[in-house]
Amino acid sequence: MNSGPALVSILRQGDTLVASVHTALDDSEMVRFQNDLVRQIGEYRARGVIIDVAALDVIDSFASRTLQTIADIARLRGAVTVIVGIQPDVAFAMVRLGMGMGEVTTALDLEEGMAHLARLREVGNARG
Amino acid sequence: MNSGPALVSILRQGDTLVASVHTALDDSEMVRFQNDLVRQIGEYRARGVIIDVAALDVIDSFASRTLQTIADIARLRGAVTVIVGIQPDVAFAMVRLGMGMGEVTTALDLEEGMAHLARLREVGNARG
Repeated sequence: MNSGPALVSILRQGDTLVASVHTALDDSEMVRFQNDLVRQIGEYRARGVIIDVAALDVIDSFASRTLQTIADIARLRGAVTVIVGIQPDVAFAMVRLGMGMGEVTTALDLEEGMAHLARLREVGNARG
Repeated sequence: MNSGPALVSILRQGDTLVASVHTALDDSEMVRFQNDLVRQIGEYRARGVIIDVAALDVIDSFASRTLQTIADIARLRGAVTVIVGIQPDVAFAMVRLGMGMGEVTTALDLEEGMAHLARLREVGNARG
Protein backbone atom coordinates (compact mmCIF):
# COMPACT_ATOMS: atom_id res chain seq x y z
CA MET A 1 0.00 0.00 0.00
CA ASN A 2 2.56 2.52 1.18
CA SER A 3 6.18 2.77 0.31
CA GLY A 4 8.30 3.11 3.40
CA PRO A 5 7.17 1.85 6.79
CA ALA A 6 3.41 1.53 6.98
CA LEU A 7 2.12 4.55 8.85
CA VAL A 8 -1.42 3.42 8.26
CA SER A 9 -2.49 -0.15 7.71
CA ILE A 10 -5.72 -0.72 5.85
CA LEU A 11 -7.25 -4.13 6.38
CA ARG A 12 -10.36 -5.49 4.80
CA GLN A 13 -13.00 -7.30 6.77
CA GLY A 14 -16.00 -8.23 4.66
CA ASP A 15 -17.32 -5.00 3.22
CA THR A 16 -15.61 -2.92 5.86
CA LEU A 17 -12.18 -1.36 5.67
CA VAL A 18 -10.33 -0.94 8.93
CA ALA A 19 -7.63 1.71 8.76
CA SER A 20 -5.30 1.88 11.75
CA VAL A 21 -3.27 5.04 12.03
CA HIS A 22 -0.03 4.08 13.76
CA THR A 23 1.53 7.47 14.11
CA ALA A 24 0.83 11.14 13.60
CA LEU A 25 0.67 11.80 9.87
CA ASP A 26 2.07 14.84 8.19
CA ASP A 27 0.50 16.59 5.27
CA SER A 28 1.76 14.37 2.46
CA GLU A 29 1.25 11.17 4.44
CA MET A 30 -2.33 12.18 5.09
CA VAL A 31 -2.87 12.69 1.38
CA ARG A 32 -1.40 9.28 0.66
CA PHE A 33 -3.70 7.76 3.27
CA GLN A 34 -6.69 9.50 1.66
CA ASN A 35 -5.75 8.20 -1.77
CA ASP A 36 -5.14 4.64 -0.57
CA LEU A 37 -8.39 4.56 1.31
CA VAL A 38 -10.53 5.99 -1.46
CA ARG A 39 -8.98 3.62 -3.99
CA GLN A 40 -9.62 0.62 -1.77
CA ILE A 41 -13.22 1.64 -1.13
CA GLY A 42 -13.77 1.26 -4.85
CA GLU A 43 -11.64 -1.85 -5.22
CA TYR A 44 -13.28 -3.81 -2.41
CA ARG A 45 -16.72 -2.25 -2.78
CA ALA A 46 -16.52 -1.23 0.87
CA ARG A 47 -19.64 0.08 2.55
CA GLY A 48 -18.06 0.93 5.85
CA VAL A 49 -14.76 2.47 6.90
CA ILE A 50 -13.38 2.41 10.42
CA ILE A 51 -10.46 4.69 11.19
CA ASP A 52 -8.73 3.66 14.39
CA VAL A 53 -6.79 6.51 15.96
CA ALA A 54 -6.10 4.80 19.29
CA ALA A 55 -2.35 5.09 18.71
CA LEU A 56 -2.49 8.87 18.40
CA ASP A 57 -1.70 10.81 21.55
CA VAL A 58 -2.55 14.08 19.92
CA ILE A 59 -5.11 15.06 17.30
CA ASP A 60 -4.59 18.62 16.15
CA SER A 61 -6.94 20.72 14.09
CA PHE A 62 -5.24 19.62 10.86
CA ALA A 63 -5.64 15.93 11.65
CA SER A 64 -9.21 16.46 12.80
CA ARG A 65 -10.11 18.32 9.63
CA THR A 66 -8.40 15.74 7.47
CA LEU A 67 -10.25 12.87 9.12
CA GLN A 68 -13.50 14.70 8.50
CA THR A 69 -12.48 15.25 4.89
CA ILE A 70 -11.75 11.56 4.47
CA ALA A 71 -15.16 10.72 5.95
CA ASP A 72 -16.80 13.13 3.50
CA ILE A 73 -14.95 11.61 0.54
CA ALA A 74 -15.79 8.08 1.68
CA ARG A 75 -19.42 9.09 1.99
CA LEU A 76 -19.46 10.30 -1.59
CA ARG A 77 -18.06 6.91 -2.56
CA GLY A 78 -20.89 5.20 -0.70
CA ALA A 79 -19.15 4.22 2.53
CA VAL A 80 -19.96 5.25 6.07
CA THR A 81 -17.00 6.22 8.22
CA VAL A 82 -16.66 5.68 11.95
CA ILE A 83 -13.71 7.07 13.86
CA VAL A 84 -12.76 4.96 16.86
CA GLY A 85 -10.28 4.94 19.69
CA ILE A 86 -9.97 8.61 20.54
CA GLN A 87 -8.13 8.51 23.87
CA PRO A 88 -9.66 10.27 26.90
CA ASP A 89 -6.84 12.82 27.13
CA VAL A 90 -7.06 13.49 23.42
CA ALA A 91 -10.82 13.99 23.70
CA PHE A 92 -10.33 16.45 26.57
CA ALA A 93 -7.77 18.43 24.64
CA MET A 94 -9.83 18.50 21.46
CA VAL A 95 -12.93 19.79 23.20
CA ARG A 96 -10.90 22.26 25.26
CA LEU A 97 -9.57 23.67 21.99
CA GLY A 98 -13.03 23.86 20.49
CA MET A 99 -12.44 21.04 18.06
CA GLY A 100 -14.57 18.03 17.38
CA MET A 101 -15.30 15.50 14.71
CA GLY A 102 -18.17 17.43 13.17
CA GLU A 103 -20.77 15.15 11.71
CA VAL A 104 -18.54 12.10 11.71
CA THR A 105 -19.66 9.22 13.86
CA THR A 106 -17.33 8.20 16.65
CA ALA A 107 -17.19 5.04 18.73
CA LEU A 108 -15.22 3.86 21.71
CA ASP A 109 -13.10 1.25 19.99
CA LEU A 110 -12.89 -1.07 17.04
CA GLU A 111 -15.46 -3.44 18.46
CA GLU A 112 -18.03 -0.69 19.03
CA GLY A 113 -17.28 0.70 15.59
CA MET A 114 -17.97 -2.64 13.94
CA ALA A 115 -21.14 -3.00 15.99
CA HIS A 116 -22.27 0.43 14.83
CA LEU A 117 -21.74 -0.44 11.17
CA ALA A 118 -23.54 -3.74 11.68
CA ARG A 119 -26.53 -1.89 13.13
CA LEU A 120 -26.54 0.52 10.21
CA ARG A 121 -26.55 -2.38 7.81
CA GLU A 122 -29.32 -4.04 9.75
CA VAL A 123 -31.72 -1.16 9.45
CA GLY A 124 -30.73 -0.80 5.82
CA ASN A 125 -30.03 2.74 6.74
CA ALA A 126 -26.46 3.23 5.66
CA ARG A 127 -27.20 6.79 4.66
CA GLY A 128 -23.68 6.88 3.19
CA MET B 1 -15.29 7.34 42.70
CA ASN B 2 -14.97 10.67 44.51
CA SER B 3 -13.16 11.37 47.71
CA GLY B 4 -15.30 13.44 50.07
CA PRO B 5 -19.09 13.43 49.96
CA ALA B 6 -20.41 12.39 46.60
CA LEU B 7 -21.44 15.53 44.75
CA VAL B 8 -22.25 13.49 41.70
CA SER B 9 -23.24 9.86 41.70
CA ILE B 10 -22.61 7.90 38.56
CA LEU B 11 -24.65 4.74 38.24
CA ARG B 12 -24.51 2.22 35.49
CA GLN B 13 -27.59 0.79 33.88
CA GLY B 14 -26.81 -1.57 31.02
CA ASP B 15 -24.74 0.42 28.56
CA THR B 16 -25.99 3.73 29.94
CA LEU B 17 -24.37 5.81 32.66
CA VAL B 18 -26.69 7.90 34.79
CA ALA B 19 -24.91 10.80 36.48
CA SER B 20 -26.95 12.65 39.08
CA VAL B 21 -25.59 16.04 40.05
CA HIS B 22 -26.60 16.59 43.67
CA THR B 23 -25.34 20.10 44.15
CA ALA B 24 -23.81 23.01 42.29
CA LEU B 25 -20.26 22.08 41.34
CA ASP B 26 -17.33 24.42 41.42
CA ASP B 27 -14.53 24.42 38.91
CA SER B 28 -12.41 21.61 40.34
CA GLU B 29 -15.42 19.47 41.19
CA MET B 30 -16.64 19.81 37.64
CA VAL B 31 -13.26 18.66 36.35
CA ARG B 32 -13.35 15.67 38.68
CA PHE B 33 -16.82 14.84 37.42
CA GLN B 34 -15.58 15.07 33.82
CA ASN B 35 -12.67 12.75 34.56
CA ASP B 36 -14.80 10.20 36.40
CA LEU B 37 -17.39 10.15 33.67
CA VAL B 38 -14.97 9.84 30.79
CA ARG B 39 -13.07 7.08 32.56
CA GLN B 40 -16.27 5.16 33.21
CA ILE B 41 -17.44 5.51 29.62
CA GLY B 42 -14.35 3.55 28.64
CA GLU B 43 -14.53 1.14 31.52
CA TYR B 44 -18.16 0.16 31.04
CA ARG B 45 -18.25 0.68 27.27
CA ALA B 46 -21.14 3.05 27.79
CA ARG B 47 -23.02 4.16 24.72
CA GLY B 48 -25.30 6.61 26.48
CA VAL B 49 -24.86 9.13 29.26
CA ILE B 50 -27.69 10.79 31.13
CA ILE B 51 -26.84 13.78 33.28
CA ASP B 52 -29.60 14.51 35.74
CA VAL B 53 -29.54 18.11 36.93
CA ALA B 54 -32.93 18.06 38.66
CA ALA B 55 -31.30 18.92 41.98
CA LEU B 56 -29.78 22.13 40.65
CA ASP B 57 -31.76 25.30 41.32
CA VAL B 58 -29.42 27.37 39.22
CA ILE B 59 -27.43 26.63 36.10
CA ASP B 60 -25.06 29.46 35.30
CA SER B 61 -23.12 29.98 32.13
CA PHE B 62 -20.12 28.11 33.53
CA ALA B 63 -22.17 25.04 34.42
CA SER B 64 -23.97 25.16 31.10
CA ARG B 65 -20.71 25.36 29.18
CA THR B 66 -19.18 22.58 31.25
CA LEU B 67 -22.13 20.30 30.64
CA GLN B 68 -21.79 20.94 26.92
CA THR B 69 -18.08 20.19 27.15
CA ILE B 70 -18.78 16.92 28.89
CA ALA B 71 -21.27 16.00 26.18
CA ASP B 72 -18.69 16.81 23.49
CA ILE B 73 -16.03 14.69 25.17
CA ALA B 74 -18.46 11.82 25.65
CA ARG B 75 -19.33 12.02 21.97
CA LEU B 76 -15.69 11.68 20.99
CA ARG B 77 -15.59 8.58 23.18
CA GLY B 78 -18.63 7.18 21.40
CA ALA B 79 -21.42 7.96 23.86
CA VAL B 80 -24.51 10.09 23.36
CA THR B 81 -25.35 12.49 26.19
CA VAL B 82 -28.81 13.57 27.28
CA ILE B 83 -29.29 16.22 29.94
CA VAL B 84 -32.45 15.75 31.93
CA GLY B 85 -34.34 17.40 34.73
CA ILE B 86 -33.79 21.09 34.05
CA GLN B 87 -36.30 22.69 36.39
CA PRO B 88 -38.91 25.14 34.99
CA ASP B 89 -37.48 28.11 36.90
CA VAL B 90 -33.98 27.20 35.81
CA ALA B 91 -35.12 26.92 32.20
CA PHE B 92 -36.80 30.36 32.43
CA ALA B 93 -33.67 31.89 33.86
CA MET B 94 -31.37 30.27 31.34
CA VAL B 95 -33.38 31.47 28.37
CA ARG B 96 -33.83 34.92 29.91
CA LEU B 97 -30.04 35.12 30.13
CA GLY B 98 -29.59 33.95 26.57
CA MET B 99 -28.12 30.61 27.57
CA GLY B 100 -29.00 27.18 26.33
CA MET B 101 -27.60 23.72 26.00
CA GLY B 102 -26.34 24.17 22.46
CA GLU B 103 -26.42 20.98 20.47
CA VAL B 104 -26.89 18.76 23.49
CA THR B 105 -30.10 16.79 23.67
CA THR B 106 -32.34 17.48 26.64
CA ALA B 107 -35.28 15.56 28.02
CA LEU B 108 -37.86 16.18 30.69
CA ASP B 109 -36.68 13.64 33.21
CA LEU B 110 -34.74 10.44 33.65
CA GLU B 111 -37.51 8.35 32.15
CA GLU B 112 -37.72 10.44 29.00
CA GLY B 113 -33.95 10.45 28.76
CA MET B 114 -33.79 6.66 28.89
CA ALA B 115 -36.57 6.48 26.31
CA HIS B 116 -34.63 8.81 24.03
CA LEU B 117 -31.49 6.68 24.24
CA ALA B 118 -33.54 3.54 23.64
CA ARG B 119 -35.01 5.10 20.49
CA LEU B 120 -31.53 6.04 19.25
CA ARG B 121 -30.36 2.48 19.80
CA GLU B 122 -33.39 1.11 18.03
CA VAL B 123 -32.81 2.99 14.82
CA GLY B 124 -29.15 2.07 15.07
CA ASN B 125 -28.52 5.67 14.43
CA ALA B 126 -26.77 6.76 17.61
CA ARG B 127 -24.71 9.32 15.80
CA GLY B 128 -22.56 9.17 18.90
